[in-house]
Amino acid sequence: MATNQIISNRLNTLGIKLPPPSPPAASYVMATTMGPLVFLSGHIARKDGKPWVGKLGKDMDTDAGKSAARAIGIDLIATLQEHLGSLDRVKRIVKVMGLVNSTNEYTDQHLVINGCSELLFDVFGEAGVHARSAFGVAQIPLGSCVEIELIAEIHT
Amino acid sequence: MATNQIISNRLNTLGIKLPPPSPPAASYVMATTMGPLVFLSGHIARKDGKPWVGKLGKDMDTDAGKSAARAIGIDLIATLQEHLGSLDRVKRIVKVMGLVNSTNEYTDQHLVINGCSELLFDVFGEAGVHARSAFGVAQIPLGSCVEIELIAEIHT
Amino acid sequence: MATNQIISNRLNTLGIKLPPPSPPAASYVMATTMGPLVFLSGHIARKDGKPWVGKLGKDMDTDAGKSAARAIGIDLIATLQEHLGSLDRVKRIVKVMGLVNSTNEYTDQHLVINGCSELLFDVFGEAGVHARSAFGVAQIPLGSCVEIELIAEIHT
Repeated sequence: MATNQIISNRLNTLGIKLPPPSPPAASYVMATTMGPLVFLSGHIARKDGKPWVGKLGKDMDTDAGKSAARAIGIDLIATLQEHLGSLDRVKRIVKVMGLVNSTNEYTDQHLVINGCSELLFDVFGEAGVHARSAFGVAQIPLGSCVEIELIAEIHT
Repeated sequence: MATNQIISNRLNTLGIKLPPPSPPAASYVMATTMGPLVFLSGHIARKDGKPWVGKLGKDMDTDAGKSAARAIGIDLIATLQEHLGSLDRVKRIVKVMGLVNSTNEYTDQHLVINGCSELLFDVFGEAGVHARSAFGVAQIPLGSCVEIELIAEIHT
Repeated sequence: MATNQIISNRLNTLGIKLPPPSPPAASYVMATTMGPLVFLSGHIARKDGKPWVGKLGKDMDTDAGKSAARAIGIDLIATLQEHLGSLDRVKRIVKVMGLVNSTNEYTDQHLVINGCSELLFDVFGEAGVHARSAFGVAQIPLGSCVEIELIAEIHT
């Protein structure tokens, strides 16, 4: 079975249907390729196609933040598929940077971003395990609660 | 016409004269090369050679922030020229990370960083189109209103 | 003398004993390799094995922040040694991103992150000089005062 079928099957098993890729919010593109590296732009959390607005520690709890991070993970995979043509070109997920819209007191950013990290592992298996930074920011474009960017390695 | 002349002409047409490259604010360098990748350090916004101080949502509006981001774009190009010797070594702009000094309520970081993204497109054309993350941070060194780092691909 | 011995000697001269590598705080790994690049996850400041809690501009001064950044530098080197088997595989430090847990007014993030940058120079010499971004964030996982991620180039 080709890798792509494995990943398609995993997406099916997880009940995940990839959404239309996110459009850029401004003057840039959602992905660039440089040799074996793909750089994905920061994807903001969306719900029903609109920015998923909220600030952790104020009007959103860790579980909701984790759900938002998981939703971004799905959007990142949709962008990879759109950009690469097929997910079987993904060799591994190298690095994730996760930004959490946080009050000055909220300190569970790592648990929020786990929503994305666990999804990547569920979909890509060992190839989905990545290096990561997570931290709390003052705000995110359009008031979104979480923003995540990603670097992947591809087969060339 | 060599690429460098095209870019020089574009800079002239845009009325842009590259300033002296920004010095590092501390113990590091403004650029490193790793194979085909050039990593530029975070450049803070400057006005008349001094930090361009301000916080979006408090004492600075989106248009002023966008002007600051455009000024950083020019500084980034000046650093590329200094580091590479010639801008014709730039193959493309791969990735931009834009940090906006923001209140906890300001949510137009993407419009601010467009000031840099649009300048890169104006100067490099399609080779200037990049992946990007933009978000709001609590503060930036020396109180500067915007900070931008950049990854470029070069001809090797 | 092999590079590794030079680095070991420098660590000895500096009185630095590498600690056990930091464990990930969540669902990820502390380092990934992609060809000649090693991406280290964001390492949070720790003191006596526990998160080094504090916010610059509120309950921690610049000198203490700089010490925390230096401690992270040592942790980053410990992770490199663990991940690579030997520090002589490090060709150079390419890029550092330093996040400082800051109030909305604190503006000396660059001086804080110098604690790490200077340590990297002391240990690796010219090969330790890197590009860098430093900025202030609303919070860091577990309330830690500083978080630093790093990209290194390795001999392949």
